[in-house]
Amino acid sequence: MERIPILRMGEFLLVTIQVDMHDQLAMTLQDDLAERISATSAKAVLIDISALDMVDSFIGRMISSISGLSSIMDAETVVVGMQPAVAITLVELGLTLQGVSTALNVEKGMQLLHKRMAAK
Amino acid sequence: MERIPILRMGEFLLVTIQVDMHDQLAMTLQDDLAERISATSAKAVLIDISALDMVDSFIGRMISSISGLSSIMDAETVVVGMQPAVAITLVELGLTLQGVSTALNVEKGMQLLHKRMAAK
Repeated sequence: MERIPILRMGEFLLVTIQVDMHDQLAMTLQDDLAERISATSAKAVLIDISALDMVDSFIGRMISSISGLSSIMDAETVVVGMQPAVAITLVELGLTLQGVSTALNVEKGMQLLHKRMAAK
Repeated sequence: MERIPILRMGEFLLVTIQVDMHDQLAMTLQDDLAERISATSAKAVLIDISALDMVDSFIGRMISSISGLSSIMDAETVVVGMQPAVAITLVELGLTLQGVSTALNVEKGMQLLHKRMAAK
């Protein structure tokens, strides 16, 4: 079955979205993430969406629900690599991604997280 | 145009292969990689193939040529997350991926690279 790989980078998990998401794939990703956060005690989930040049409310909701899931499991969510057009669309759709941090790229996202961990 | 994102992680570049590769996509990936290695002075390229449960000679050759390209540009290539069936197929195809290091997952691949950098 098709699934999106979840890469472990130290205390963080990294998910790169490259393909068109559909219901089943999004569900599988959430299930897999819940399992991996629990298994690895990950402190944060980084979602790279730099490959997406379009976004719809489905993707927006998926990011929100991953964020909710992570938050329940005591992990933060950082969305990285958002393209300008995607940001504009999300605002137009009224999806403000509350509780989700953003960073320009994976490296900056990890720096942000390291700083937050250090401040705790 | 469809393209595979290349993520920068410190001195390394990370590519996650999730989709079926075809000629144009593989060519684009190689062009992008050459550009990014040059722009970022990356020391290594990590290719995550954990999402692939099948492999053919096309993918095998693509990995070989990425490795050749990286090597010319003074960067190493580490293939991570290879599934057992993929390893068996590569051997059966006679593709031994010379000059390419492997590691079980991204984290181990990065540890391997950090050790090598430290030893230099």
